[in-house]
Amino acid sequence: MEKKMLFPQTGALIHGGDYNPEQWLDRPDILEEDVRLMKKAGMNSATLGVFSWSVLEPREGEFHFEWLEEIVDRLYQNGIYTVLATPSGARPAWLDEAYPEAMRVNRQGMREHHGGRHNHCMTSPKYREKVTVIDRKLAERLGSHPGVIMYHISNEFGGECFCPLCIQRFQEYLAEKYDHDIDKLNAAWWTAFWSHRYNRFDQIEPPFASGENSVMGLNLEWKRFTTWNTNDFMKHEISVLRSVTPDVPVTANFMRLFGGLDYRKMAPELDVVSWDNYPLFHNDWETFAETMCETAFQHAVMRSLKRGTPFMMMESAPGLVNWQPVNKVKRPGVHRLACLQAVAGGSDTVQYFQWRKGRGSFEQFHGAVVDHIGTDDTRVFREVAQVGELLKKIAPVAGTLVQPRAALLFDWDNRWAIEDVKALAQATKKYEETCIDIWKSFFRLGVDMDVVGSDEDLSAYDVVVAPMLYLLQPGTAGNLKAFVERGGQLLATYFTGYVNADQLCYLGGFPGDGLKDLFGIISEEIDSLYPSDRNGIQMTDGTKWEVKEYAEILQVQDAQILGRYTDDFYGGSAAVTCKNHGRGNAYYVAARTAGEQMLPLFEKMLADGGIPVRKLPGGVEYHVRSGEEGRYEFYLNCTGEEQTVSDVKGKDLVTDTEVQGTLTLQRYGAAVVKTA
Amino acid sequence: MEKKMLFPQTGALIHGGDYNPEQWLDRPDILEEDVRLMKKAGMNSATLGVFSWSVLEPREGEFHFEWLEEIVDRLYQNGIYTVLATPSGARPAWLDEAYPEAMRVNRQGMREHHGGRHNHCMTSPKYREKVTVIDRKLAERLGSHPGVIMYHISNEFGGECFCPLCIQRFQEYLAEKYDHDIDKLNAAWWTAFWSHRYNRFDQIEPPFASGENSVMGLNLEWKRFTTWNTNDFMKHEISVLRSVTPDVPVTANFMRLFGGLDYRKMAPELDVVSWDNYPLFHNDWETFAETMCETAFQHAVMRSLKRGTPFMMMESAPGLVNWQPVNKVKRPGVHRLACLQAVAGGSDTVQYFQWRKGRGSFEQFHGAVVDHIGTDDTRVFREVAQVGELLKKIAPVAGTLVQPRAALLFDWDNRWAIEDVKALAQATKKYEETCIDIWKSFFRLGVDMDVVGSDEDLSAYDVVVAPMLYLLQPGTAGNLKAFVERGGQLLATYFTGYVNADQLCYLGGFPGDGLKDLFGIISEEIDSLYPSDRNGIQMTDGTKWEVKEYAEILQVQDAQILGRYTDDFYGGSAAVTCKNHGRGNAYYVAARTAGEQMLPLFEKMLADGGIPVRKLPGGVEYHVRSGEEGRYEFYLNCTGEEQTVSDVKGKDLVTDTEVQGTLTLQRYGAAVVKTA
Amino acid sequence: MEKKMLFPQTGALIHGGDYNPEQWLDRPDILEEDVRLMKKAGMNSATLGVFSWSVLEPREGEFHFEWLEEIVDRLYQNGIYTVLATPSGARPAWLDEAYPEAMRVNRQGMREHHGGRHNHCMTSPKYREKVTVIDRKLAERLGSHPGVIMYHISNEFGGECFCPLCIQRFQEYLAEKYDHDIDKLNAAWWTAFWSHRYNRFDQIEPPFASGENSVMGLNLEWKRFTTWNTNDFMKHEISVLRSVTPDVPVTANFMRLFGGLDYRKMAPELDVVSWDNYPLFHNDWETFAETMCETAFQHAVMRSLKRGTPFMMMESAPGLVNWQPVNKVKRPGVHRLACLQAVAGGSDTVQYFQWRKGRGSFEQFHGAVVDHIGTDDTRVFREVAQVGELLKKIAPVAGTLVQPRAALLFDWDNRWAIEDVKALAQATKKYEETCIDIWKSFFRLGVDMDVVGSDEDLSAYDVVVAPMLYLLQPGTAGNLKAFVERGGQLLATYFTGYVNADQLCYLGGFPGDGLKDLFGIISEEIDSLYPSDRNGIQMTDGTKWEVKEYAEILQVQDAQILGRYTDDFYGGSAAVTCKNHGRGNAYYVAARTAGEQMLPLFEKMLADGGIPVRKLPGGVEYHVRSGEEGRYEFYLNCTGEEQTVSDVKGKDLVTDTEVQGTLTLQRYGAAVVKTA
Repeated sequence: MEKKMLFPQTGALIHGGDYNPEQWLDRPDILEEDVRLMKKAGMNSATLGVFSWSVLEPREGEFHFEWLEEIVDRLYQNGIYTVLATPSGARPAWLDEAYPEAMRVNRQGMREHHGGRHNHCMTSPKYREKVTVIDRKLAERLGSHPGVIMYHISNEFGGECFCPLCIQRFQEYLAEKYDHDIDKLNAAWWTAFWSHRYNRFDQIEPPFASGENSVMGLNLEWKRFTTWNTNDFMKHEISVLRSVTPDVPVTANFMRLFGGLDYRKMAPELDVVSWDNYPLFHNDWETFAETMCETAFQHAVMRSLKRGTPFMMMESAPGLVNWQPVNKVKRPGVHRLACLQAVAGGSDTVQYFQWRKGRGSFEQFHGAVVDHIGTDDTRVFREVAQVGELLKKIAPVAGTLVQPRAALLFDWDNRWAIEDVKALAQATKKYEETCIDIWKSFFRLGVDMDVVGSDEDLSAYDVVVAPMLYLLQPGTAGNLKAFVERGGQLLATYFTGYVNADQLCYLGGFPGDGLKDLFGIISEEIDSLYPSDRNGIQMTDGTKWEVKEYAEILQVQDAQILGRYTDDFYGGSAAVTCKNHGRGNAYYVAARTAGEQMLPLFEKMLADGGIPVRKLPGGVEYHVRSGEEGRYEFYLNCTGEEQTVSDVKGKDLVTDTEVQGTLTLQRYGAAVVKTA
Repeated sequence: MEKKMLFPQTGALIHGGDYNPEQWLDRPDILEEDVRLMKKAGMNSATLGVFSWSVLEPREGEFHFEWLEEIVDRLYQNGIYTVLATPSGARPAWLDEAYPEAMRVNRQGMREHHGGRHNHCMTSPKYREKVTVIDRKLAERLGSHPGVIMYHISNEFGGECFCPLCIQRFQEYLAEKYDHDIDKLNAAWWTAFWSHRYNRFDQIEPPFASGENSVMGLNLEWKRFTTWNTNDFMKHEISVLRSVTPDVPVTANFMRLFGGLDYRKMAPELDVVSWDNYPLFHNDWETFAETMCETAFQHAVMRSLKRGTPFMMMESAPGLVNWQPVNKVKRPGVHRLACLQAVAGGSDTVQYFQWRKGRGSFEQFHGAVVDHIGTDDTRVFREVAQVGELLKKIAPVAGTLVQPRAALLFDWDNRWAIEDVKALAQATKKYEETCIDIWKSFFRLGVDMDVVGSDEDLSAYDVVVAPMLYLLQPGTAGNLKAFVERGGQLLATYFTGYVNADQLCYLGGFPGDGLKDLFGIISEEIDSLYPSDRNGIQMTDGTKWEVKEYAEILQVQDAQILGRYTDDFYGGSAAVTCKNHGRGNAYYVAARTAGEQMLPLFEKMLADGGIPVRKLPGGVEYHVRSGEEGRYEFYLNCTGEEQTVSDVKGKDLVTDTEVQGTLTLQRYGAAVVKTA
Repeated sequence: MEKKMLFPQTGALIHGGDYNPEQWLDRPDILEEDVRLMKKAGMNSATLGVFSWSVLEPREGEFHFEWLEEIVDRLYQNGIYTVLATPSGARPAWLDEAYPEAMRVNRQGMREHHGGRHNHCMTSPKYREKVTVIDRKLAERLGSHPGVIMYHISNEFGGECFCPLCIQRFQEYLAEKYDHDIDKLNAAWWTAFWSHRYNRFDQIEPPFASGENSVMGLNLEWKRFTTWNTNDFMKHEISVLRSVTPDVPVTANFMRLFGGLDYRKMAPELDVVSWDNYPLFHNDWETFAETMCETAFQHAVMRSLKRGTPFMMMESAPGLVNWQPVNKVKRPGVHRLACLQAVAGGSDTVQYFQWRKGRGSFEQFHGAVVDHIGTDDTRVFREVAQVGELLKKIAPVAGTLVQPRAALLFDWDNRWAIEDVKALAQATKKYEETCIDIWKSFFRLGVDMDVVGSDEDLSAYDVVVAPMLYLLQPGTAGNLKAFVERGGQLLATYFTGYVNADQLCYLGGFPGDGLKDLFGIISEEIDSLYPSDRNGIQMTDGTKWEVKEYAEILQVQDAQILGRYTDDFYGGSAAVTCKNHGRGNAYYVAARTAGEQMLPLFEKMLADGGIPVRKLPGGVEYHVRSGEEGRYEFYLNCTGEEQTVSDVKGKDLVTDTEVQGTLTLQRYGAAVVKTA
């Protein structure tokens, strides 16, 4: 196994964060103090330039890079590397004034006013032109600086625009996709329904709030287009930078399982995937361990976007955040634990938003390493400095990989199709929640899963779970069939294979595209349950599962029945089936049940797939990273009590002690055990 | 009694549904199969042409009727009659492109975009012109076809438009109504309040969201105008069709007690009333029997819109629907029961939306006789086919009538006035719910009530209940007085007779327009109760009623006091009164109580009115249709358990057996007993 | 002590209300009857002209004052004085038609339509011009009439406008404020954040819904500007009236602690403060006594806006109102009690909206002295007439003052800043609620507090409480320090002194601007609690307080620790502190607790401040007004049961009896005891 060091020049894990000296140019004393404090906190990186446009170019064509260069110099001289952001995340006032086309038109059809951020038209030629100019100048001035280790493209891409330029681009995109043949589009979108036939591509409007919202094909293509166009914009920025400094790697910071963009389409354009991690710790609807576990899932999503290389946790909050419904401070020890979890999940960086709190505006109360008080004598600063120390201890982890043998299928197209589908029960579709619930169940068995697209190569995996795969991409059915044939353990659920990629229903019985033969069943009806409705499944192994929200009624062809409904008019009929196919098995769970209840089934699949189960005390996470020189086991105690783990052998890098057998973890404690 | 056969050429009850072959023109095999399956399902009708415009006229002036004619021919050859719809329910893209005036302007003052359906400006001359052309061509081509038995005008009319054309038409409507005298309007709308005097009719705008919403007269006239203008549009379509084929009957499909249009104004223009019936079966807030009972009420509303003739259930869902909050499948037997209920309530048809599920778009998962699987081997298909059989057995019912001797007064104007009134408690006005609750209480006594307007002829009735008759139409008070004088039993409630048809309060004491003399009381104050507030009424007959939400404080003139409040500062004062007038009685219930608690009072009124009570086991419905040759008693078991009914004599057409005494009904079972 | 008689010509308390004869000009009989009934009800005043514009000037330039003059004459002849309103609260239709600029543009950027009221652009030169004309004519015609005792400016000012004229005026306002130096504004608004630097003042837009909402400085200045511009409009009206009749006093009717305008900026322009009082009596979330107590707070707010002179209760409802969520009738006796409370709190008037119910439109069901029935034979009329009698009995109270020695600090700027701050927990900021809760706690100790701004002169007070003083005005810290130095007892809480008047955070530790030295503590972190989270404070006096919603973690410098947290990771650390400074004490309560729990602390502060505590039975209010000739103690029984109060000595003006010791109060009863 090769090591994938993201930044060989650092020889370390990155510890850094967003730094905005442009807010303090009139306070050189504070800028001096920043460097002193960064070193004290063990930082080896700072992210500069996010939202700096109005200082870099205060008037059109008037540029000021000297302050930025000075900061990059000084940081570099103090061993702190720069992640350099393009400033395109927010536009200066003069730009919107001169080029109103840069401002979006919203779903209501109204041009937005200047303000906020992340709200530019991705199509606007003028905006792209101005971005080209500033990006090129930035790269020319600072891209070759030895302290600059990476470009950070814009910030947290997202959002839609309904302006005339975007509408035209959407029409061109559609014409391209449907071979300039409007009848292909009419067939794909089933426009004979409700008299919705189009005559020409330039007749098509995006789904305005008071416009066309009832054509599922249109709705989905608009989502796809928004990703396509955002990606195009991002690629444009990247191409400008690469034309100047082709060797500086680029990233763009993502946001969890964000619903607005299909990150899987964007990741290939980036050298490294990064994301901004803001869990709602200490909330009142789940345990702390649950919050951590969901965060582990999000890390897995990011890791899987670019398999075979570490990712970056580009942002996270020291202390608290300021925009959540309830802004709670992290309890002592939690910061360290959450930082370690990122590394455990595959991140080679621990970065923060933000280094120092700004005195005013929207995020003046967002957690930072340095608070308004301006000193290092705060709990938050001390905890950050401890993380700095710790990252040095576990530096050998840098470049190693998390390489699971199980995967969960998650598709953005499928998500959008389910979100929009006029079926089921509006309030309980819960595609993401269902995926996360199943992922967490496997994770509780000590099995980390990748989160991959339904058309991705599955050869690295022995167990694959594909919940609610309502929409099938062109190659999906074949992909799954091949996976089972070569010995894979596959599990699908209710609401699988109803529509193709155009959202046209399969004829001849669900799941379509051949999957009814793979699973040996046909789904005849799907019942939606009210919150108070319940059913059950009696498994042949004696266990009984509780059914909520959805239950399909099956016709069984040639599958083995593993469980039957206990109640209602379909009581006694098949609810869980398995069909042997090739050297593998294809399981079908026809109703919604909690992942927890399916654990015995999952264990069987893992056993058949040859994947070892590692059960730890509740709330203790187990992660593994491995590389050429060894394997690093992460044990994270996500509970407020001491926990012990048995069968641990190796050297704990955190305490620098050998563990032989039992590992004791303090409240929120962690160990990173290097094994053979 | 004469029989009112809707379609003598069929000699039967109609079994049919919406059919959209235009979605499958590239699949002649499927179109062939449709005919075979329709016959197997016992269908004798199909509704064609709803939303077919973009296929009938794919480009302006280019017409394609050949496919439609071919289908009508083939169906007719197979014994299946066509209900032929005009396509005006949705506009082709080319039409909106060429004539943007056809798209509505919404309450926010913004022109809507192309898309959706049922959203055209009813005023637009251009839209009317294009509708005229397509309707005329449709009638010319197919109106005389022997298979065509009816026209179906547009689809589910509804909605408002705030465009300049509608505004001008509204102003003309107002000028006409107020004799072109703006001071009459100023007086009627009490515009001296808040300085709202108008100088001219062309100054008046409809109630835009950010405009005039505080003039009750304006708000109500806008509602009335919307009905008037929609009706005018509908009449326009009808006149075009009649000019070509004067003898083909017309209908338009209504939607329950829809709040947007006063159906009572539209019904006279139609030959037959029809409606689309989508109950939320198996929900979690009421019993199944309650859902059925409310549906029975809705049938009564439709039946009463055109007394003396059967109506049509134009749409209903085989299986499930796809747009409800929770889309549940109908339990086995429920489909049959609901179809029979429609016939029991006065419908001569059982029709579905839809025959076959379309592969894409908004209703791709709406229940259909034929599912995506495409076969007759589904539970839903089998249940539909059973209904087909059953309708043949009870065919003699066709043309008979439901003729109750009790009526509930329900006015759309009153409904709109209450909805808008600035009084009471916003969340608990519940006019419709109160009417339905009372209707259901009578129905539980075996008494079906018509649902009539307050100015309608009441001579067919012996008992009339007029809940919350806040607004009095010009003739209402006289109508009620005459009803009581000739021996009628009348019951009114709190919130009666506060305003006239302009919503001006009556001076001199409520209820106004002479009703305080009819009832012998004056309502001095009305108290609104918080949800946790309670009061009671101690009746002189010893029963005690619970009061919620509203309580009027009365001054009793010359009425007899039947009940007094038990609590609060008005404890001991009159709450229920009765005054003998002429040969009848006028009851007044001054507070809100559940219909269930008033049952003894209702029984007394029925007894005095000479109307027999027929109490059945809970959840068993009793309906009667009668005609020249006899009387048909419908017994519907709306429970999941077997029920027995005694005192039944006659021949059950469902089982083709004689019943003498006790009738046993299976779970969801039904009997149609022909008596003398 | 000087007496401050508002209307010496009346020699009495005012009993009156809004009167709209313009709605009844075609009913001279009713206008005659009005005078007879007013006298019977003991009214000595009527408010005329509110919303009369369209009758006074039915067409532009055509004036009709004759009817108004006739009414003023007749009333005066019958001993009824006129409060004369300018009609600018609602615009005639012709005005909006001719001058659309008078209609506001809303936050969405759309010009509103004609309609409603209180919705004119305050900037529009045309609207100001038309107001000037009508106001001048009104003053010229009637301002010198001996019956006219006051001008009532417009009605219930409120609302914002985003039109081009307002935007330009806002930009001019900002340029003026920031010395025409855009960099001063950029620094004050911290615009380097998110690249929000402005180049010129004319680039700045107000916070449109789809515009700039993330610059706290902008948001706050927009609020300040709205007050400034509304005030400017009001001053314009006043100047017109004063130019004609300089000696007629002016008022404008306010609305409780209204969030839209900083009344403290407007009050100096008025001769008398007045307000409209509509409590939600008999609701289901608090006791009646609680509702009354909160109303007492609102009276205190109004009284404090113009210390040293009585205020007016310009509107209140006889019977009920019609626009609340639940419109309940006032229980017998409540009307009298609420009227007396107004007087007790410092009002010299009891006025109603409205004298007689209008037949139509928005407030046709709003309570009035005369109902639609038109007679005096109603409960409501009788209760009003009783109040008329009572006001005569307590007439000597007129002109006396409420003069507390304790004050609560409440700032509109602070309120707006907290409302907008991105911190804490969105749902539980509750600044107003927290202030009211503390005010009520003192009131329960028999201590009435003024409600003053943080930069006001505090020399009249010995105890000052400043809850959540997040934003410090320029002089506030000095003001508080001086207050403590000269012996004051000061209490501040969590979330104090975070930002300056520009909302820039203080550097160097909170509370800023020197307050951390005054209190001897630094607030290092603030934790937000979920609803189910709890903590406690163990006081050194042995009591234990419950903590909810917010808890600051303190570094204690040189303060005494009075209480410590009981739980969580900051358990044992300081939660309540006190520092002696000068001759006074500065208390700091670091967490949110109910005012009730802090009572012992409040009692200590009062004792140290030399303010006597007067504890009465729960639900009995104690108010004091005093003047040259004596002191009037008001005892209000806000419970449904009889109550007794001991230690009362003097003459009860209500019963005209001497009280020596024990005072007995009936359910909802009251006494006004004149003491030495």
